[in-house]
Amino acid sequence: MEAYAIGVDLGGSHLAAGLVDPAGKIHQIEETKIDPLALPEITLHLIAQTAKKLSASSRKVCAVGIGLPGNHDSAKGICRFSPNFPAWHHVPVTSPLSKALGLPVYMLNDVRVAAIGEFHFGAGKQVNHLVMLAIGTGIGGGVFVDGKLVLGHEEAAGEIGHMTIFPNGPLCNCGNHGCLEALASGPAIAARGADALLRGQSTKLKNRIKTIDQLTARVVSEAADDGDAAAYRILEEAGEAIGIAITNLAVTLNPELFVIGGGVAQAGKPLFDGMNAAVNKRLKIFPPEVVRIVPASLGVRSGLIGAAAYAFSKCNVPLNPS
Amino acid sequence: MEAYAIGVDLGGSHLAAGLVDPAGKIHQIEETKIDPLALPEITLHLIAQTAKKLSASSRKVCAVGIGLPGNHDSAKGICRFSPNFPAWHHVPVTSPLSKALGLPVYMLNDVRVAAIGEFHFGAGKQVNHLVMLAIGTGIGGGVFVDGKLVLGHEEAAGEIGHMTIFPNGPLCNCGNHGCLEALASGPAIAARGADALLRGQSTKLKNRIKTIDQLTARVVSEAADDGDAAAYRILEEAGEAIGIAITNLAVTLNPELFVIGGGVAQAGKPLFDGMNAAVNKRLKIFPPEVVRIVPASLGVRSGLIGAAAYAFSKCNVPLNPS
Repeated sequence: MEAYAIGVDLGGSHLAAGLVDPAGKIHQIEETKIDPLALPEITLHLIAQTAKKLSASSRKVCAVGIGLPGNHDSAKGICRFSPNFPAWHHVPVTSPLSKALGLPVYMLNDVRVAAIGEFHFGAGKQVNHLVMLAIGTGIGGGVFVDGKLVLGHEEAAGEIGHMTIFPNGPLCNCGNHGCLEALASGPAIAARGADALLRGQSTKLKNRIKTIDQLTARVVSEAADDGDAAAYRILEEAGEAIGIAITNLAVTLNPELFVIGGGVAQAGKPLFDGMNAAVNKRLKIFPPEVVRIVPASLGVRSGLIGAAAYAFSKCNVPLNPS
Repeated sequence: MEAYAIGVDLGGSHLAAGLVDPAGKIHQIEETKIDPLALPEITLHLIAQTAKKLSASSRKVCAVGIGLPGNHDSAKGICRFSPNFPAWHHVPVTSPLSKALGLPVYMLNDVRVAAIGEFHFGAGKQVNHLVMLAIGTGIGGGVFVDGKLVLGHEEAAGEIGHMTIFPNGPLCNCGNHGCLEALASGPAIAARGADALLRGQSTKLKNRIKTIDQLTARVVSEAADDGDAAAYRILEEAGEAIGIAITNLAVTLNPELFVIGGGVAQAGKPLFDGMNAAVNKRLKIFPPEVVRIVPASLGVRSGLIGAAAYAFSKCNVPLNPS
């Protein structure tokens, strides 16, 4: 009798739930839009409805795992707060969902479950010491030491986006200056693009947009792919900031592998060139081959698959990665 | 029948070995000078001789633990290299000592064993998630996650002194710019003091020395204690660099406690003022009380006691901290 788990990936505007087997294969997916400003009860009701479509199938589901943005007390099943969902403050998540679904429900930060997905089924499946960085609208991470995800004293480990990289650098959303997130996130890259335009730098970025708010990291990346040197340099510099963070993590934790995921990682070469250049320039106490940096391999499904893997681990079902 | 372990702390010019009980109490100490340029066999012979004086007592010794500077393969008992001992390259340490002493011998990096000492018997004995920073001639650390020391993939975790803090900062011995060690180690503080003198800053540092090579971190610290504002500021700035490292470690690992040891930590208030100021300024995603920073409490014996604790753990003797 094979067991299944339901993995739920709750994003800022979208919810995906999948029926996943212990090999990490998704057998069925249900998706729906959500309103980040809605009251928590509304969103929890949507999660329950979506998960029910999956648990109603004949397959044996052992548990539900949920990845959602924010800071949580996962042992108590409570979302402490979530910058993406301003109405959520100390919201019980697992107990109402467990009641509605008749299944055990487990929760964890969204980036941490994505890291679990990559660790077990993605780019990290052969290693025990791993750091995943998810570079998107924000920057977060997941640290694995000896095969175990590091949660920290109050379950706040992995907030790598708020490492100070340039102490006198740009203001971060958090209030600090020079955080990695203020240097290499999607909005940070877009802001650098806007800056290049406003300064009149030689770039074709302006041909790609009608208004400045259309200037996203993706537009910068497309321009770079098209041979725009200024756009390339912006991504390379973002990569260099990530590379400094990687250097700091390498000397502190000596992981075997760094896995780079999130939407911005799609920028590819200029970003990875920047990372490798910074590591080669700065990491002098180890031979350079000690630090391996690879892109994530599960794409947008890392969170959903990781949430299911987390649920499996909680009900002691062994994973069976191919 | 109570068991004892011998803890050996091998420093750059000095060797201390102690007979330690599972409560962390030192019953006997033997010390001797060593020559860092000597061939490894000479130093290993001195270690064996010193340890023998302790094992010859009537007490039951279960094992010997050694902390020594450098990068090691502790599972194989080999010192890969040690900047302090230029002649040591891939030197077997545990097997010749074990043969000479007739006891199991275990080795680990010197800062890591000091962290083990503070974790079990010192400032960290009540906590499970801890980072120790040892600020001395160099800067190293020890990271504990869920009660376990993090060694990393190739036993190089904890080299916190080589986190890049100011990317355009002063050149570090390692070849990178702006490493924590280049900003806050003893020699870095002394260099800032010399700089203040050469620039003609208002400071009484010159009254305390005859030649510039007498200007150590301790002299800077004594001047600061005596009301010298420039000296105070130098230590505060070193503390601010440490505080940025602490912020980066806090967001990544969320430890319960930071323990600051090593000779430079003796500078006290200006250094800790700088650390706390930087953390309060930069750590915006957690409430400030999440980060607790305390001085180490075992002083110069943390390494010796930690080496013995490490030996106890290897022969499965439970520790019994008071």
